[in-house]
Amino acid sequence: MGDVDGVLAAVDEGMPGALERLFELLAIDSISTDPAYKDSCLKAADWLVDDLRSIGFDANRHDTPGHPMVVALQNSEISDNGPHLLFYGHYDVQPVDLLELWNRPPFEPVIEDTPNGKVIRARGAADDKGQLMTFVEACRAWKKVTGSLPTQISLFFEGEEESGSPSLIPFMTENRDMLKADLALVCDTGMWDRETPTISTMLRGMVGEEITITGPSLDLHSGMYGGPAMNPIRVLNRILADLHDDQGRVTLPDFYEGVTPLPDNVKEQWEALNHDGTAFLQAVGLGTPAGEVGYSVLEQIWARPTCDVNGINGGYTGEGFKTVLPSVATAKISFRLVGEQDPDAIQKAFYKHVEDRLPADCTVAYKAKDGSKATVMPVDAPAFKQAQQALTLEWQKEAVYAGCGGSIPVVGHIKEILDMDSLLVGFMLDDDAIHSPNEKYSLNSFHKGIRSWVRILNALSKKEES
Amino acid sequence: MGDVDGVLAAVDEGMPGALERLFELLAIDSISTDPAYKDSCLKAADWLVDDLRSIGFDANRHDTPGHPMVVALQNSEISDNGPHLLFYGHYDVQPVDLLELWNRPPFEPVIEDTPNGKVIRARGAADDKGQLMTFVEACRAWKKVTGSLPTQISLFFEGEEESGSPSLIPFMTENRDMLKADLALVCDTGMWDRETPTISTMLRGMVGEEITITGPSLDLHSGMYGGPAMNPIRVLNRILADLHDDQGRVTLPDFYEGVTPLPDNVKEQWEALNHDGTAFLQAVGLGTPAGEVGYSVLEQIWARPTCDVNGINGGYTGEGFKTVLPSVATAKISFRLVGEQDPDAIQKAFYKHVEDRLPADCTVAYKAKDGSKATVMPVDAPAFKQAQQALTLEWQKEAVYAGCGGSIPVVGHIKEILDMDSLLVGFMLDDDAIHSPNEKYSLNSFHKGIRSWVRILNALSKKEES
Repeated sequence: MGDVDGVLAAVDEGMPGALERLFELLAIDSISTDPAYKDSCLKAADWLVDDLRSIGFDANRHDTPGHPMVVALQNSEISDNGPHLLFYGHYDVQPVDLLELWNRPPFEPVIEDTPNGKVIRARGAADDKGQLMTFVEACRAWKKVTGSLPTQISLFFEGEEESGSPSLIPFMTENRDMLKADLALVCDTGMWDRETPTISTMLRGMVGEEITITGPSLDLHSGMYGGPAMNPIRVLNRILADLHDDQGRVTLPDFYEGVTPLPDNVKEQWEALNHDGTAFLQAVGLGTPAGEVGYSVLEQIWARPTCDVNGINGGYTGEGFKTVLPSVATAKISFRLVGEQDPDAIQKAFYKHVEDRLPADCTVAYKAKDGSKATVMPVDAPAFKQAQQALTLEWQKEAVYAGCGGSIPVVGHIKEILDMDSLLVGFMLDDDAIHSPNEKYSLNSFHKGIRSWVRILNALSKKEES
Repeated sequence: MGDVDGVLAAVDEGMPGALERLFELLAIDSISTDPAYKDSCLKAADWLVDDLRSIGFDANRHDTPGHPMVVALQNSEISDNGPHLLFYGHYDVQPVDLLELWNRPPFEPVIEDTPNGKVIRARGAADDKGQLMTFVEACRAWKKVTGSLPTQISLFFEGEEESGSPSLIPFMTENRDMLKADLALVCDTGMWDRETPTISTMLRGMVGEEITITGPSLDLHSGMYGGPAMNPIRVLNRILADLHDDQGRVTLPDFYEGVTPLPDNVKEQWEALNHDGTAFLQAVGLGTPAGEVGYSVLEQIWARPTCDVNGINGGYTGEGFKTVLPSVATAKISFRLVGEQDPDAIQKAFYKHVEDRLPADCTVAYKAKDGSKATVMPVDAPAFKQAQQALTLEWQKEAVYAGCGGSIPVVGHIKEILDMDSLLVGFMLDDDAIHSPNEKYSLNSFHKGIRSWVRILNALSKKEES
């Protein structure tokens, strides 16, 4: 029996203590978006510093204009020549409103029995305190059994992930040397289903724009001016309607530049998932895929770029009618990017699209959201194969590479600022109700999550073994 | 010197008394939209009943579920075989907010000197108390000088014009016989300019629709669903953008059915008005006519149909961004109609336009506003020529036939329910600030307005004289 079996046994034995520690962290109401909880965020950061020091990390709180960062570095005793890993997580949580929808107080964690097994019920149980503690507990077990970690490990926690991470880029830029490692590990994603361990290897990027079209200098009466006076809603409708063709494709010139076809092996693996696109859509009252013709629902979400209008507003929108011809109309638009699509080029193409459709009488103002490229992980690199094998071993089911329709901005920053790939492994389930009342985390996710990291650390530390 | 000169002299002499009466009516704060002023509306109705009885009319208040109607009929002494005329006006006024923008209390009328002459300053001075009293005072002068009226006259006042006239159609329908006459006179419009008396002979009709497109059964995350999930804003944009072609024309099939070319004589007369379309648009921050190519700005407003989106709403419209793919999107749309365009046919064509663009996954709900046909007065009929000559004589400037881009619903009801044409003569000026703080009515409009009606009544009573 090698080191790893001893460490796994220690994990199993140590579960009561691991839960006790997690419950301490969950009891801290570290809601980052509400300034009233500033001290709670501090408290959670300090709790992590103390806990990481207890395992032997050189852990410190780094204050920022917002909530603090926590960075834990390893003291001298590196046990191996394996890669240097940087683990990322966040200790802040979403607000709890509406509180009356919770079945019990959100910051008094408990274990509950459910038809699908035991769960940990609390705000942050899954997102992200429960997940980050799977990694911390794995480190603790390694230290306890072997006296050291199998490879060099740093940990990096932020407290602003649920409120837009305003301090993240400045902090990472200023502390590039401290944070730099060979590979990042991120535990903030989920599993394909209850049984299937998952590595998220494709995240869509994003270009977000708010446009405001101004026509007349004031709201007009649509009887007195309708006809000769240009209505900015009409202009906006034209701009937005022209963004898609009748095949569901985005019409911006060169929009698909950098969108690479899905590699055959990934495509095969996704097909093997037997995703039921119709059932997926029917669950939200739909039934016909609205994306590009010729792609499966899973491909449309994970591997194809999109354009959506997230908000539109103009004129009178209250009860009844008002014969107004408004001065302004506005819309919020987002493009989801894949592959090597260039956010700057797409922003420019969008601006040109708008201006080509802007009558002489109208003006446009833009408000851009930070753009980010898509993330495509090098799934053929040894670390990804090692992690996949380790997960497969733990869960006794082939671990899958999955896409993710959304964006995880920190992964882009890790790539841009630290020049590192990220290995995204997480154990959340679709029904964890993150961001919603009654958030939970499966006890199985927590337990096997810790065990999974034990195995992954073991696998990554063995350079050529896989 | 005929009767009319004596009556005009009596008008001039009687101005102090006429102003005193108008000021009494203006002092009543008969704001119809606010239930707090219900008693004031009653009081204004009663004031009119008393005043009309003092001239010898058989005047009565008719209570309704809303504010009362006032109807004044003539007692026996008809002086002539001329047409039976029904005069319409409204005694209710707009709210005064914001009160702090008024230079003096809105219900304490005064005469003020201005660079353009004396004005009567008060809420309702122009819209419509000052205007309706021009007619009442003309009747009073006729009675005073000749002992009778030159032709049969009824008067009909409502108190809900500024709050959607909910009681109007039921009352007119139930009292068709009492109200029926040969021709309606309506004094609720304005003059082309300070010097030019005006008969409004074309009013645009209206079809109003609110549409709500529902896609997914709940708001979705645009990352997790963007692509395969149909976005109802995208559907709405397509529906609305397809309503216009690039020549500014409305694209609904058969939309222009019933739009007749402007008669040459009207076109010539409008051209003689030398309307500066560019200046008209520049005053509101525009400069390029957005209506149908090939028509002047005046024609686009007065003689051409339009489509405008008066309001649009969907998704997240607050500060910042939210990556929502919304469940619903809604818009309020109005079509302005001209000539013989059929509101029902246009509504049907619009529904078909919507449904042709509705993907299988989306549903639509409609909320219709009452439709109304356009009004085109028979300007070649003797009454119109007689009135035009009378106005020309009074103002010493050729009276013009004008269009009106808006709708005056009562004119449609008079046509539909009572089968009568309306002669729209009014003396408001563009700067009267109706519906706004510091409303005023030119003293000249009031004085020459009374004199104009004296002459018009005289002209209309003479069957074949013109």
